[in-house]
Amino acid sequence: MSEIPSDHPRFHSLNLRHRLVEGLHAGLASEAGLLAQGRGEAFDYLLGEKTHRFAEQAMAAASARLIRAEHPVLSVNGSAASLAAAEIVSLVKAYPRLSIEVNLFYHAEQRSHRIANRLREVGAPLVLESCDPKSIALPTVQSNRRRMHPDGIGKADVVIVALEDGDRCEGLVNAEKRVIAIDLNPLSRTAQMAEISIIDELTRSLKYLQNQLVADSKRDQAELAQRSEAYDNQEVLKQAIAAVRDGVDLNAREVSEKAAPEN
Amino acid sequence: MSEIPSDHPRFHSLNLRHRLVEGLHAGLASEAGLLAQGRGEAFDYLLGEKTHRFAEQAMAAASARLIRAEHPVLSVNGSAASLAAAEIVSLVKAYPRLSIEVNLFYHAEQRSHRIANRLREVGAPLVLESCDPKSIALPTVQSNRRRMHPDGIGKADVVIVALEDGDRCEGLVNAEKRVIAIDLNPLSRTAQMAEISIIDELTRSLKYLQNQLVADSKRDQAELAQRSEAYDNQEVLKQAIAAVRDGVDLNAREVSEKAAPEN
Repeated sequence: MSEIPSDHPRFHSLNLRHRLVEGLHAGLASEAGLLAQGRGEAFDYLLGEKTHRFAEQAMAAASARLIRAEHPVLSVNGSAASLAAAEIVSLVKAYPRLSIEVNLFYHAEQRSHRIANRLREVGAPLVLESCDPKSIALPTVQSNRRRMHPDGIGKADVVIVALEDGDRCEGLVNAEKRVIAIDLNPLSRTAQMAEISIIDELTRSLKYLQNQLVADSKRDQAELAQRSEAYDNQEVLKQAIAAVRDGVDLNAREVSEKAAPEN
Repeated sequence: MSEIPSDHPRFHSLNLRHRLVEGLHAGLASEAGLLAQGRGEAFDYLLGEKTHRFAEQAMAAASARLIRAEHPVLSVNGSAASLAAAEIVSLVKAYPRLSIEVNLFYHAEQRSHRIANRLREVGAPLVLESCDPKSIALPTVQSNRRRMHPDGIGKADVVIVALEDGDRCEGLVNAEKRVIAIDLNPLSRTAQMAEISIIDELTRSLKYLQNQLVADSKRDQAELAQRSEAYDNQEVLKQAIAAVRDGVDLNAREVSEKAAPEN
């Protein structure tokens, strides 16, 4: 990454790309993950590469939901570990009630171990894996995508999924897990099916969520319960969709100003 | 590709993904190409994965421009060859005045040869390469991105670029080439800098352009000259940007209808 100066206007986005390509080469991420990251980049570009108010609302609700959960679990796949291993570990260290489970869309034992090892290298205290011999079936998801660890997602009431496929999100919802999704596309099946949809870039949102959880841990349970109940995910998705649409015009204006700087 | 049934609603898009991943494994395409393809997919999704009227207008103008050109060249990179080798070869066979030059953003001789070989395998009669020992410098593009073949882009008056980086597009424009760009993002620097911007998916547009060229080859030169002059790329870009914006709402409506099929 030494080639990209840190004051480059696209430093963060290029840095994420670099992390994911490294993750592919290290056998953590997949080619499908690179394509998905590109799709996410397009939405983040339209959203102005910033955390919007609707994402902050979703994260405030997510924080309340996680604190009130019996057994909250963060589901980690190869893209998430490649992009945000440090942020994931920082989050679970700051909020140790949250467990990590490596849970892959395509069952791949070696890849799962590599992801778990990466998380341990950056300091994760405990990492469960859905490919564990003890793992159990997620009832409604087909074929290889259905395993979960009995002490992780298996007994979780609330699951955070990041950059996750719609089928797996649907499987979790059908298994009566309350799903919090982090996804840049408010139109994706994952975002549409989750109970709380955080429409934001993964590393930005994990940092924000961590601060929110630390602050909320000192707050009154009744206040958190009320916040959780008042939250309206359909309204948040509506606002996110409007922000993407408005982002097309905002970017078009910026592009045409750049094209005619003399005006 | 045997896993994807041809009646799958996303067959074409998944098929393209598969071709690009194969291109990466065969050493034709790059990881950056996969990320770029993902960004393109997001715009194609918002555009409804169809060829719009504004793209047809751009292709009609492109056809006229190519027929009236002294020396038109199609610049091919690893992503374009992976996704559309058959369509590229079909186009140059149907319209043999168009030359092919393999011209890469990152200079890489072996990769260039592999791309040229792929095009020859599917029947390309002649493939020039910018890494040829005779190659000359594109005056305004930095470092490794500046080579062009003297009998290809070097003497071209009109160059078609597909899925091309903004810097290279700028280099061609500064070298006084008239650039026709095929790009799914109407806000990209490439689309903004080209003289004719075809905002459409590569394989769809190459097939359309081929039919247009064959039909136009029989037409009167004066008619083509007039069409070329009447063409307004700024208007086409404006319409493409509006279509992306409207696509956000169209997709949002479709998604909410799917979420509530009982209504």
